[in-house]
Amino acid sequence: MTREEALTFYKNWQEKKEAYGLVMSTAYYDQETIAPQAGSAVRNKALAYLSGEVYDIETDPKAIEVLEFLAKEDLGEEKNREIALALRSLDNVRALDKEEVVAFNEESMASFDDWQKAKHEKDYARFEPHLLKLIGFSKRFAAKRHPDMDPYDVYLDDYEEGMTAADYDRFFDLVRSELSPLVFEIAQHQDRVDDSFLHLDYPKEKQAKFAEDICKALGFSRDWGYMGISEHPFTNGISKNDVRITTAYDEKDVSASLYSIVHEVGHAFFEHQVKDEFAGTPLHHMISSGMHESQSRFLENYIGRRKAFLKGLYPKLQEYFPEQLGNVSLDAFWRAVNASRPSLIRTQADELTYPLHILIRYEIEKSIFKGTADLEHLNTLWNEKYKEYLGVDVPDDGVGILQDVHWSGASFGYFPTYALGSAIGAQLLHAMEKDLDIDAALEKGEFFRITDWLKEHFQQYGARYTFKEAVVKATGEEFDPHYYIDYLKKKYRTLYGLDQ
Amino acid sequence: MTREEALTFYKNWQEKKEAYGLVMSTAYYDQETIAPQAGSAVRNKALAYLSGEVYDIETDPKAIEVLEFLAKEDLGEEKNREIALALRSLDNVRALDKEEVVAFNEESMASFDDWQKAKHEKDYARFEPHLLKLIGFSKRFAAKRHPDMDPYDVYLDDYEEGMTAADYDRFFDLVRSELSPLVFEIAQHQDRVDDSFLHLDYPKEKQAKFAEDICKALGFSRDWGYMGISEHPFTNGISKNDVRITTAYDEKDVSASLYSIVHEVGHAFFEHQVKDEFAGTPLHHMISSGMHESQSRFLENYIGRRKAFLKGLYPKLQEYFPEQLGNVSLDAFWRAVNASRPSLIRTQADELTYPLHILIRYEIEKSIFKGTADLEHLNTLWNEKYKEYLGVDVPDDGVGILQDVHWSGASFGYFPTYALGSAIGAQLLHAMEKDLDIDAALEKGEFFRITDWLKEHFQQYGARYTFKEAVVKATGEEFDPHYYIDYLKKKYRTLYGLDQ
Repeated sequence: MTREEALTFYKNWQEKKEAYGLVMSTAYYDQETIAPQAGSAVRNKALAYLSGEVYDIETDPKAIEVLEFLAKEDLGEEKNREIALALRSLDNVRALDKEEVVAFNEESMASFDDWQKAKHEKDYARFEPHLLKLIGFSKRFAAKRHPDMDPYDVYLDDYEEGMTAADYDRFFDLVRSELSPLVFEIAQHQDRVDDSFLHLDYPKEKQAKFAEDICKALGFSRDWGYMGISEHPFTNGISKNDVRITTAYDEKDVSASLYSIVHEVGHAFFEHQVKDEFAGTPLHHMISSGMHESQSRFLENYIGRRKAFLKGLYPKLQEYFPEQLGNVSLDAFWRAVNASRPSLIRTQADELTYPLHILIRYEIEKSIFKGTADLEHLNTLWNEKYKEYLGVDVPDDGVGILQDVHWSGASFGYFPTYALGSAIGAQLLHAMEKDLDIDAALEKGEFFRITDWLKEHFQQYGARYTFKEAVVKATGEEFDPHYYIDYLKKKYRTLYGLDQ
Repeated sequence: MTREEALTFYKNWQEKKEAYGLVMSTAYYDQETIAPQAGSAVRNKALAYLSGEVYDIETDPKAIEVLEFLAKEDLGEEKNREIALALRSLDNVRALDKEEVVAFNEESMASFDDWQKAKHEKDYARFEPHLLKLIGFSKRFAAKRHPDMDPYDVYLDDYEEGMTAADYDRFFDLVRSELSPLVFEIAQHQDRVDDSFLHLDYPKEKQAKFAEDICKALGFSRDWGYMGISEHPFTNGISKNDVRITTAYDEKDVSASLYSIVHEVGHAFFEHQVKDEFAGTPLHHMISSGMHESQSRFLENYIGRRKAFLKGLYPKLQEYFPEQLGNVSLDAFWRAVNASRPSLIRTQADELTYPLHILIRYEIEKSIFKGTADLEHLNTLWNEKYKEYLGVDVPDDGVGILQDVHWSGASFGYFPTYALGSAIGAQLLHAMEKDLDIDAALEKGEFFRITDWLKEHFQQYGARYTFKEAVVKATGEEFDPHYYIDYLKKKYRTLYGLDQ
């Protein structure tokens, strides 16, 4: 085949994938937001059928042949990167036998079903055999795919290209040694921050009105975005100029929807602000979850939890809820939304305790792949670590090892990217502060100065660079977890009145 | 091929069509309700691509071969009907050369673009050449498809199986002779019904709350349905248990959204109440537009505009709008929503004048296919007929011959089904009244008695029967337009205080 033929084939294949991808992600968004319950059987059948079609397109042997051919051509750095990303996503298909993949997928589906039941029934024994089988699959697959690599590194690289256990160790060692003691110290001074007023009655209708104010303040525009409601908030980048988010209203927690929106809008801007030339290509779609999470957490925590950010919005919230918040000062509200408290559930954890939840999962995964974990008692290991790092007693496995969906699908190596996303944020903040008076911009209502900075220094590049490269590009320095650790220590020691 | 092989192929082909159909109709609903504007270019490209895939599946030569084989087998009446319906929809593909179809589609797209511009600019000259070309195509296609049939009958049959111009003549002769004079008579007594209060300011937010009350009163359940907002209201039957409707709020017309909802819920029940065994087959999807329109108009006009229907809902509307409606009695409101007045635009016409708008289009279409129309002056013909039957002067072609989209895509033969749908309704009403005290059911809030009756006598059968057969099945009599004419005359002579 000629280069011309290969490029033409690739272009058509990409367009086809794009077309299917768009309708499938539209259907997914619809399903999670508005689709009526009684239609689910017919809908699931149709979506499963179409997923099969998409899989056949994506794993078309001719496409793999073309990509392998193009990967050896000099197409310019950007195009070569694009081809490399497309190939990366086919690593499994290229290295494994079809029967193995089918067997894995079947086990995975059975595992998911039993995980749901096990979680509901707090019955780890129901899920354990699946987990062990999936661990077996994963070890075999890693050995087949990259016999030269440490198996856990294979999966860490899958979720965050270029990252290894050695990299993560440097980061998580600090999380363990510096943040865990701080969490224990703060646990002794819970009375210093009152957040009880966040948990009065906050009717959904008024929260929905406030949600519109939030979107407006953030510059999340109806021209290229839409916000719906779903059980769990998420972002769906249907295309660069069609980015959907969702929120959920908790009538017993007025800050939940506020920060879910700021978080998802962070994802949304990344989807929207990728360069036009990259839109709809692997340089857009294959942004790693850690990179994506860095942008959502940046807006949520580093910007959204600043007092200057709340200054504009909080008076509106008080107007919607005069009885609940009329007598609560801006300062008290700001302290409340930054309260920290060791807890059981990762997805509900605050900014400070969150990385410890991830540390626990990281250590367990690492020991599984190293072969040092006692596979018969992973739930016990889980509980011991919660006690050790967070001081929390796990009452049952439903809120312990069964709480997250990830392992039910063998997504080992995924969790660490969540913490990494947070960690990059502190380094980006440090860089942004050199260019921009963030508080002044927020107080002037110029939120776009923040999102413009993120676009210029980070978001426009999409998946053009790996995480490590992107950090250097945006901040001029290699990734340094000290920014994160220092930020958290300073913020929380101040908030809780502890010695610096 | 064996019967077994053919049936297996057919089953798989149906499932594939169903799967694609579901995601495409989900994407369509999304596009018309929430999709952000800036994403339209990428979205249109993707949807066009997928439409091509769907077209290829639907017109798969192997499928046609299988259907033609099965059509000759004795598969039981229902299955044979299903196969016949599937073949009906492929009539064009089977009879015409691919080049002709492509040429027609290209002309059709160009025509649609110019029609949009022409309507906006009130410039019939821009659209006329397209219309004449499409007429040419249609005449040639009809002659090729069914050389033995009158060409207009070919298209009348396409939209309403079994109906011919001879059938429609009997109906429209009555519309012309009986209803047109009544419209002129009522035009002299406009002062007898005051509907000015419907056109005060009615903020959307409260209309939206009232819309929820309407859905509830009608039994349009969130379990199997969903109501969104779009520019023009429509119903989208994604599956039997996933039926989407939309409404639109006009702040200057409080009855617009009320009756749009009742209308669309009529369509929705038909989609939802088809027999389980028919769901997702041609017996469900190929319900004719006239049959469908009969159910939406039945709820809208024959039920929704009754005083007993308004008795339950109107007090709630008054609560939402005490300033606008506090002093308007139920009787005055009921009279207002039934007011009749000759007007220019079909889609805004009331129950009485509506069939005259259709009569005009029917007569023009018939004369086009008979060859008696002066094709150089169709707009003048249009204006003359509006003057003659409705007494209305057409100020420009934008609100005249260019008002409807149908002819821009050569959908000749479609319009008459709208009037037919209304006409069946009166006959269904007559039959329903024998079994049910409708006003008593409405006053007790038992709306389900009406929809249950419709299910039992009409809706469960889907497309199992033709329009003519379905009317006999539901009412025990052949279609008789006198029910409709008599109903309108009695209703409107009473409302406007004219001699009976």
